[in-house]
Amino acid sequence: MIKVGIVGGTGYTGVELLRLLVLHPQVTLQVITSRADAGTRVDQMFPSLRGFVDLLFVHPDEASLELCDLVFFATPNGIAMQQTRALLDSGVRVIDLAADFRLLDIASWEKWYGMKHACPDLVAEAVYGLPEINREKIKSARLVANPGCYPTAVQLGFIPLLDAGVVEASSLIADAKSGVSGAGRKAEIPALFAEAGDNFKAYGVAGHRHLPEIKQGLARITGNEVGLTFVPHLTPLIRGIHATLYGRLTKEVDLQALFEQRYASEAFVDVMPVGSHPETRSVRGSNRCRIAVHRPQGGDTVVVLSVIDNLVKGAAGQAVQNMNIMFNLPENTALNIVPLLP
Amino acid sequence: MIKVGIVGGTGYTGVELLRLLVLHPQVTLQVITSRADAGTRVDQMFPSLRGFVDLLFVHPDEASLELCDLVFFATPNGIAMQQTRALLDSGVRVIDLAADFRLLDIASWEKWYGMKHACPDLVAEAVYGLPEINREKIKSARLVANPGCYPTAVQLGFIPLLDAGVVEASSLIADAKSGVSGAGRKAEIPALFAEAGDNFKAYGVAGHRHLPEIKQGLARITGNEVGLTFVPHLTPLIRGIHATLYGRLTKEVDLQALFEQRYASEAFVDVMPVGSHPETRSVRGSNRCRIAVHRPQGGDTVVVLSVIDNLVKGAAGQAVQNMNIMFNLPENTALNIVPLLP
Amino acid sequence: MIKVGIVGGTGYTGVELLRLLVLHPQVTLQVITSRADAGTRVDQMFPSLRGFVDLLFVHPDEASLELCDLVFFATPNGIAMQQTRALLDSGVRVIDLAADFRLLDIASWEKWYGMKHACPDLVAEAVYGLPEINREKIKSARLVANPGCYPTAVQLGFIPLLDAGVVEASSLIADAKSGVSGAGRKAEIPALFAEAGDNFKAYGVAGHRHLPEIKQGLARITGNEVGLTFVPHLTPLIRGIHATLYGRLTKEVDLQALFEQRYASEAFVDVMPVGSHPETRSVRGSNRCRIAVHRPQGGDTVVVLSVIDNLVKGAAGQAVQNMNIMFNLPENTALNIVPLLP
Amino acid sequence: MIKVGIVGGTGYTGVELLRLLVLHPQVTLQVITSRADAGTRVDQMFPSLRGFVDLLFVHPDEASLELCDLVFFATPNGIAMQQTRALLDSGVRVIDLAADFRLLDIASWEKWYGMKHACPDLVAEAVYGLPEINREKIKSARLVANPGCYPTAVQLGFIPLLDAGVVEASSLIADAKSGVSGAGRKAEIPALFAEAGDNFKAYGVAGHRHLPEIKQGLARITGNEVGLTFVPHLTPLIRGIHATLYGRLTKEVDLQALFEQRYASEAFVDVMPVGSHPETRSVRGSNRCRIAVHRPQGGDTVVVLSVIDNLVKGAAGQAVQNMNIMFNLPENTALNIVPLLP
Repeated sequence: MIKVGIVGGTGYTGVELLRLLVLHPQVTLQVITSRADAGTRVDQMFPSLRGFVDLLFVHPDEASLELCDLVFFATPNGIAMQQTRALLDSGVRVIDLAADFRLLDIASWEKWYGMKHACPDLVAEAVYGLPEINREKIKSARLVANPGCYPTAVQLGFIPLLDAGVVEASSLIADAKSGVSGAGRKAEIPALFAEAGDNFKAYGVAGHRHLPEIKQGLARITGNEVGLTFVPHLTPLIRGIHATLYGRLTKEVDLQALFEQRYASEAFVDVMPVGSHPETRSVRGSNRCRIAVHRPQGGDTVVVLSVIDNLVKGAAGQAVQNMNIMFNLPENTALNIVPLLP
Repeated sequence: MIKVGIVGGTGYTGVELLRLLVLHPQVTLQVITSRADAGTRVDQMFPSLRGFVDLLFVHPDEASLELCDLVFFATPNGIAMQQTRALLDSGVRVIDLAADFRLLDIASWEKWYGMKHACPDLVAEAVYGLPEINREKIKSARLVANPGCYPTAVQLGFIPLLDAGVVEASSLIADAKSGVSGAGRKAEIPALFAEAGDNFKAYGVAGHRHLPEIKQGLARITGNEVGLTFVPHLTPLIRGIHATLYGRLTKEVDLQALFEQRYASEAFVDVMPVGSHPETRSVRGSNRCRIAVHRPQGGDTVVVLSVIDNLVKGAAGQAVQNMNIMFNLPENTALNIVPLLP
Repeated sequence: MIKVGIVGGTGYTGVELLRLLVLHPQVTLQVITSRADAGTRVDQMFPSLRGFVDLLFVHPDEASLELCDLVFFATPNGIAMQQTRALLDSGVRVIDLAADFRLLDIASWEKWYGMKHACPDLVAEAVYGLPEINREKIKSARLVANPGCYPTAVQLGFIPLLDAGVVEASSLIADAKSGVSGAGRKAEIPALFAEAGDNFKAYGVAGHRHLPEIKQGLARITGNEVGLTFVPHLTPLIRGIHATLYGRLTKEVDLQALFEQRYASEAFVDVMPVGSHPETRSVRGSNRCRIAVHRPQGGDTVVVLSVIDNLVKGAAGQAVQNMNIMFNLPENTALNIVPLLP
Repeated sequence: MIKVGIVGGTGYTGVELLRLLVLHPQVTLQVITSRADAGTRVDQMFPSLRGFVDLLFVHPDEASLELCDLVFFATPNGIAMQQTRALLDSGVRVIDLAADFRLLDIASWEKWYGMKHACPDLVAEAVYGLPEINREKIKSARLVANPGCYPTAVQLGFIPLLDAGVVEASSLIADAKSGVSGAGRKAEIPALFAEAGDNFKAYGVAGHRHLPEIKQGLARITGNEVGLTFVPHLTPLIRGIHATLYGRLTKEVDLQALFEQRYASEAFVDVMPVGSHPETRSVRGSNRCRIAVHRPQGGDTVVVLSVIDNLVKGAAGQAVQNMNIMFNLPENTALNIVPLLP
């Protein structure tokens, strides 16, 4: 059994990790920390877990995380980097669901996240936890940087095109739409029901933290910097990301075959039949990414539609997938979930 | 393995049955029928099932249902009663998710459902599939009438009070609110997003088909006819029923203890702590009913709050629970689901 | 022209007042205060007002409210009572949209609102601003206590029954459902889209601040204390309240005629035809209350359905209606609005 | 007073026309037709209109439309073209809210709309009713083709760029998101609350009827055919369109000044301040289009954000704006509406 700890269990990625882990046959939940809610029963804060979790939130100072085999950080940015070295030194493996170890360029990270990085050397060691790209490295990783939600949906959609070198890498466009849970379980006015409900808007057009992460990931494929316009939008949806991706084709190619072959052996990427329009609800609650590829009117613009559940493949589910890989378990352990539709 | 057939697989109770059954370790899905969509792949209509179901919808005339061990009817009212006798004669057991076998009073059924009943004698044989009341009879039943969604939430909330005889049975009130999926996957204007969204209304105040079903169920407890005012409402929710129940107390009683004791051994009824307000999302996607009991200002009115997912405990989940009981399986097989929150 | 000031213009009742007042032909907006957002353009915070409002939020200390003819308080509870005396002394009339002047019983107010009242004598002077009850007194009032949202919907539904003395006043039930804007524009987790969306729950069953306000209002009608069970619910709706009211009939009466006669001359109360189910969207954005009355199965329980827009008839619209009455304007000035449907 | 008739008053554009016209000081509503609902009171179908409309739906065969000054067609495609010639011959002016007169290329129209056109000569006469382009021609038009919802939002966003010739016209991208009311008040499964709610998807990527309309409109500006990739999406919103537009800049230009100057005298196009992200709710219920222009990271991609209410500026409001122009009324008569927020 894998002894697991969760740091920061009161946010949406925390409760989603719990939803998945309580049914994982190889996991023992040791400890869940919360600074603000220490002493509260986990299932009092999240009644959906009544009958599944018998733990209380523990104050971080009183949690013996070093006794765990694996610790998940489901914390705000900037927390994991403070505690990871000590855990690694104790032989604990770490998966950070926040952004602390995602950007190799420390200066860029410090600019986008507005703080000084505590351990740049660990950034260099960390493995970017997108299994469809990095599965082998993840197996032996001590420290995994779990990808962001937008970066997961966008990269999985662009990878086959960039792998094959069939689009102009200097003029990519990612028009992405996210459900409101992507903003986290934080008391902020723009995320109120009466603000985000029955409303649609773009945000962060001038720049969003996920832009450098996506560009770094795509550059890994092409070997060169890519040009990307990334426009995120907030849509009145609880869960779900829909990325609509545009590229300019530079050569003739069977797009459908290209995508199907790239993901033929991937359990969690589903290339849909020609002409499909994946819906976010078709992956609700599951770790699946569904993709469709179009070439409207046979022109030179390729359109890729890529959907994930931002809390699962975009966060907690991908973290569990990474854990399964790190511990040599079947990759879909505890992730064999039928999406909830309707 | 139980060989299972589903008649009418294109509605919400059908796809929900599929969601639950494809992960059931003792079930083999033999056949799923649809008159209108015969020949279509099931996972083309419901892409959430891609990777889980490999079947096509089969025309009812070409489905060899008599080869099944169990057939679920997820059909409109009036279909199951046409086909059940032949199936029972072939040794197939039947669970009807519609209303054909719910009302013992045939005249009442014919009035509320507006058609002549095809097999009154089978109504007498059918077992009302509310396990918390009828578990023993369900074990050996050939034919189970799966309860309606409102009746499940309302009966589970009133049963402890009526069992104990502590409320005036002549003046019960059930103010119930349902998500829109309760109206089924039918093309009807009032269920459109632009009609039911951002809107709240009562309906059927003069009379609703679930009223006689609830009254029949409650009269089973009291031994006498009960007086019930039942007001259903439509709320902009996909899944979920919230029943707010009112009764006039006739004697002093420890309400919390009463409820906890009544449901102490029930896996799917969760009596919440004193002072709780169960949310519909706390049971989303699961077979749980959560209940809280209140006595505002210490007055003589008891208020019971009862929530279920109308498609699970209110339909497909309860049907699977009944199947598990009928086939001597652990009652929570394939139903050990953590609700999806948020 | 009436010179109007608004204290606390950044909440939902504030922006709703602005929506109505900017098109009011007899109103000049003098000043809008905000402690936190002083110096910000009003239409920067609320882009819906671009082209209609050219003002900046002013710090309360710098607002010359005493130059106004009328000041609206759209503030949290406990603010208006601090400033009202000085304004009245300067000859300014006041409408408080919060609860400071609603409860005549000061001890009760202090218990429910958790603070000491600053000016009990003004409570005695204040007129409760429900025009359908108090129109004459409102005309000459210096200080109007604008009713709460639930109290408006519930009282308008019960008044005809209590006026006529046809129900048992000791056992009234009000099962009320509110949209999330009723919680205000405050950064609180339970009001997040990802919390309140696709979710339904009761709250405050043990006691809610609107309970004493409703009981006080109903007792005004009957002359005696009434017995009321009040259960509020949160529903995933931006605007709207639906009150479902239950009473036990004590004598035979033509309920439809009773309601129609009571409200025959009321512009903002619409008694719907027999058998109707008013929808919250049928009053969205308007000052109308729509009511239907039912007697299910001819029993002794009367069911009243009453809907309002909580921000209009339940707050800002009723405040403007009161202003119109106080300044001898046609009561529907600036309130002749067609509800937004869909 | 303008005597107005509405053909097809039971859909969303019909009820929205009614919402606007009942408060129009220069309009007399003569007749509203409905084939299916003839004889029904208009305010029985749409209770939001109680107190504002006293008419019944009239069967088309019994409506004396020739007595009107102006007839609006709020009908499905293919109806207006059958009746327009007779009306014009009787001296009645016509505004068609459907697509019958929008495409000059008859062959293209017949391909996209799947029927033979009944009066190609009238297409040549019809004026495309986008006032920001065609105001002068609209003044004297007998027949106005009211633009589609997507075409309005997309054209208004691209016009300044194409007018100034600062983007590559061969590679435009319009990623557009619409609320569900855009699908009309039709009983179709994909528009059900339980299908479209909490869900997001693209549709019609291979081709959408609004594509040729937009391309025709943009070609009017450039004088040449444009290259456009148009991807519409369905978002869980009742009203609202958000178009995110992408173009490749071909020369340096002050984008903000360009947009502000182009629309300086337009009452219904609001160019927002630099850095803005217009929300759909900021135009809810109003005839406004709000636009923001961005150039992310100073690159060569310009991003335009354009929002409208699809039922107002995208349909009924623009139709009333056109009527006001045709009858020499102030253009904002009956359209001086503050958007409903929240």
